[in-house]
Amino acid sequence: MGQPNDEDRVTAAVLIIGDEILSGRTQDTNLRDIARYLGVLGVDLAEARTVPDVMDEIVDALNALRARYDYVITTGGIGPTHDDITADAIAQAFGVELYEHPEIIAMMAARWGGELNAARRRMARVPVGGELVKNPVQGPPGFTIGNVFTLAGVPSIMRGMLEDVGPRLRGGRPTVSRTVRVEGSGEGVIAAPLEAVAKAHPDMSLGSYPFYGDGGFGSNLVLRGRDPEQLIAVVGELIAALKGAGIDNVREIDVA
Amino acid sequence: MGQPNDEDRVTAAVLIIGDEILSGRTQDTNLRDIARYLGVLGVDLAEARTVPDVMDEIVDALNALRARYDYVITTGGIGPTHDDITADAIAQAFGVELYEHPEIIAMMAARWGGELNAARRRMARVPVGGELVKNPVQGPPGFTIGNVFTLAGVPSIMRGMLEDVGPRLRGGRPTVSRTVRVEGSGEGVIAAPLEAVAKAHPDMSLGSYPFYGDGGFGSNLVLRGRDPEQLIAVVGELIAALKGAGIDNVREIDVA
Repeated sequence: MGQPNDEDRVTAAVLIIGDEILSGRTQDTNLRDIARYLGVLGVDLAEARTVPDVMDEIVDALNALRARYDYVITTGGIGPTHDDITADAIAQAFGVELYEHPEIIAMMAARWGGELNAARRRMARVPVGGELVKNPVQGPPGFTIGNVFTLAGVPSIMRGMLEDVGPRLRGGRPTVSRTVRVEGSGEGVIAAPLEAVAKAHPDMSLGSYPFYGDGGFGSNLVLRGRDPEQLIAVVGELIAALKGAGIDNVREIDVA
Repeated sequence: MGQPNDEDRVTAAVLIIGDEILSGRTQDTNLRDIARYLGVLGVDLAEARTVPDVMDEIVDALNALRARYDYVITTGGIGPTHDDITADAIAQAFGVELYEHPEIIAMMAARWGGELNAARRRMARVPVGGELVKNPVQGPPGFTIGNVFTLAGVPSIMRGMLEDVGPRLRGGRPTVSRTVRVEGSGEGVIAAPLEAVAKAHPDMSLGSYPFYGDGGFGSNLVLRGRDPEQLIAVVGELIAALKGAGIDNVREIDVA
């Protein structure tokens, strides 16, 4: 896999904000969804961090990530309660103030009328210099400032907001992948031929993901690269190398 | 949530290692499981990071986290294939060499005999000064060096290894454990009697760690608690409950 400073590589980091993830109360799924979404666009997710709802922790992690990667996507902490401090932390990281965005106030007034209380108004706060990220699901929008996109933590809302993030990203070349399935052989046997093929193609990523279960055992070998023709050739090379090592139950599979 | 420097707070970080998490191919669940496990022990999970299978990324993240928190738990990258470089990275972070641990080699020789090839021997490598972390499920053990615990990425194996981490943590209340092995019955059959015994003893932890492979299938049931006498009694209770449910191939085992 390439390094962050490869010229044609576009990188992103995810910053997951929330005590509920670190306590184990909530199972995060946003990281996987963002990774898949970015992968299709050719943007490599290079790192992820999870931090608690603590101002300095969010600010420090955000500053480290936004300096290093092309984009940062944050999830969580933009609701109406006192522990939702993501907007405050992002404003502090960028050294700007928060203000009540008139479009969000207008949306909220239409929705809530006289019930537009102080807690709800918290969700209208956007850093000065920021722009909105549309929320096609429910509730107020997210926002973006600099190379940072700030999205909701609720998975369905987060996924909806992502649709308004993609078009703003400078896309890298999408990577393509293929999967070779080996059944009835363990990684200990697969490792040598796999490594030989991986070493011959350092610009590609070859990973081995073992499975066990009622249906037997084996490993899915995932090949990823940027050149579709090279990928097809290397799939053939890998299958030949496996068969040459006496591993016969091998085939390419479609991974939906 | 307290700050990392609160005197009576014991903190931990999780370092998730693997391209497959950052590509979105695999949904991580280890973070949540570790968070819950540590929570029961009174250890606060304060941060988590996910990094790719790239040496410098692993080393830098590990050094940042182990300097800041009382403990670091890593998951992933300890298999036999070329992209499994976690042991190398941890040795580099600590400035020590790797060596083939004689206990692991002996276990592997017993299991694999003449098939103990170079790829499998990779999994016997432990940093100089490290100690083993027991693996009650299948495959070689993990290891610990300094304040770092290095566990497998496969969730069932990771959870099993965690059972040998808790007793070594400061602030983790001392616990004792015993293991009951069920062969030839799946978790679907074991679940009901196991749950009944677990509900009768809410102050104890009962985990099920299924195994599959050449040697058949079944599950190791790990019981953990603070009172050794109670533990012995509950082991008897569990075995009786399993047999009462028609599950006969059950025995207490020593986990080496």
